Amino acid sequence: MGYQEQTIEGRNAVIEAYRSGKPIDKIYIQDGCQDGPVMTIRREARKHDTLIKYVDRERLDQMSETGRHQGVIAVAGAYEYAQLEDILAAAEAKGESPFLILLDNIEDPHNLGAIIRTANLAGAHGVVIPKNRAVGLTATVARTSAGALNYTPVARVTNLAKTIEDLKKKGIWFVCADMGGTRMYDLDLKGPIGLVIGSEGEGVGRLVREKCDMTAAIPMKGDIDSLNASVAAGVLAYEIVRQRYA
Amino acid sequence: MGYQEQTIEGRNAVIEAYRSGKPIDKIYIQDGCQDGPVMTIRREARKHDTLIKYVDRERLDQMSETGRHQGVIAVAGAYEYAQLEDILAAAEAKGESPFLILLDNIEDPHNLGAIIRTANLAGAHGVVIPKNRAVGLTATVARTSAGALNYTPVARVTNLAKTIEDLKKKGIWFVCADMGGTRMYDLDLKGPIGLVIGSEGEGVGRLVREKCDMTAAIPMKGDIDSLNASVAAGVLAYEIVRQRYA
Repeated sequence: MGYQEQTIEGRNAVIEAYRSGKPIDKIYIQDGCQDGPVMTIRREARKHDTLIKYVDRERLDQMSETGRHQGVIAVAGAYEYAQLEDILAAAEAKGESPFLILLDNIEDPHNLGAIIRTANLAGAHGVVIPKNRAVGLTATVARTSAGALNYTPVARVTNLAKTIEDLKKKGIWFVCADMGGTRMYDLDLKGPIGLVIGSEGEGVGRLVREKCDMTAAIPMKGDIDSLNASVAAGVLAYEIVRQRYA
Repeated sequence: MGYQEQTIEGRNAVIEAYRSGKPIDKIYIQDGCQDGPVMTIRREARKHDTLIKYVDRERLDQMSETGRHQGVIAVAGAYEYAQLEDILAAAEAKGESPFLILLDNIEDPHNLGAIIRTANLAGAHGVVIPKNRAVGLTATVARTSAGALNYTPVARVTNLAKTIEDLKKKGIWFVCADMGGTRMYDLDLKGPIGLVIGSEGEGVGRLVREKCDMTAAIPMKGDIDSLNASVAAGVLAYEIVRQRYA
């Protein structure tokens, strides 16, 4: 990952970044903003010796990647990708069976952010994305993750099929989301598991799908083809949660 | 059904749209505009419960397709709203217990679209949204619903709490999404049911929550506060599906 300045936009995302200990270099606040969350940010900024710049709204609009800065943009060091080993180590440290979410070519940053958010709350130990043909950790992803990116490690791999093969040798089972699969309730999803979610348009690619041990289908009772990718990831991740803990 | 932008620009065009009974979801008015025609538009907007947003001129310039907005841009409903009775009739026609999804002030059109998509695939008979302080059926909603809006009826009601009260008399039970509630697996969600989802920031409002029979919590195992609203709706809707059919 090349180094670049990482912007964090929106009040909650900035407050969450401070709370998680993320190093923030500089913060832009809209002139005249004095409400509660902005005062919290100013307090955090002073506590952490962050440089504050007061600018007008036009300036923030120009800087904004998401168009939804809410009067606050922070500039931090770029998000670091985790190593796959770190994710497995995190599971081991918690004494839990590994639970990974792997994304095959998700291109929409809102979906990636929402899935990282879901991964955090469903107790997954990390998210794995491919290097090519997929969105990376941009400011929009950070914002839509609602702070989860500060807690849930994301690893980026060159070849998702090869990664699955390697992880299978470590005893992890892979379940692929596919409409043509077995009804998710009828699968055993309790052990060390990797949940593989495909892109909106095409689902999970053939090469990756063939490496998986199981294919899980969400029951579809309606007229259209598929759920939104982040909703599908949520429903499947929570079926794993139910089987593990309910 | 085409997905064209349903914006109406200019004072006379907007007044005319109201006079002809066109359903308008939202109206953008330039800050500080107070002349006669604009006051007429504001009066009409209040009469029809249209959400008014006051924005600066630059914002309107950016939104404008014609370049001649005259300080007013309206966003009209691309789709027709259903009646609550139609939704109940649809359930009856299928010989199924009613399954409704009610949304308390969802403001993000992407979330509304994704929830309508989920409602369709989870076999819900319809979606109910409030007239005030919420996004309506805009072009963005239609697009993100991935076609579900053509199949799943959406009704708009003046008072969500009152609607819940009326529907309870018809034997429907209401379950409200709330982090402080009972673990969703421990609730009986099999009968005629209305699932109530709140806005991202604030959850379900107190007045609506107090009308509900149960509150359901999605287990949260992570570090952040909440799931994306459309993911939460998906997880809860599919817990209902599991209890009904699995």
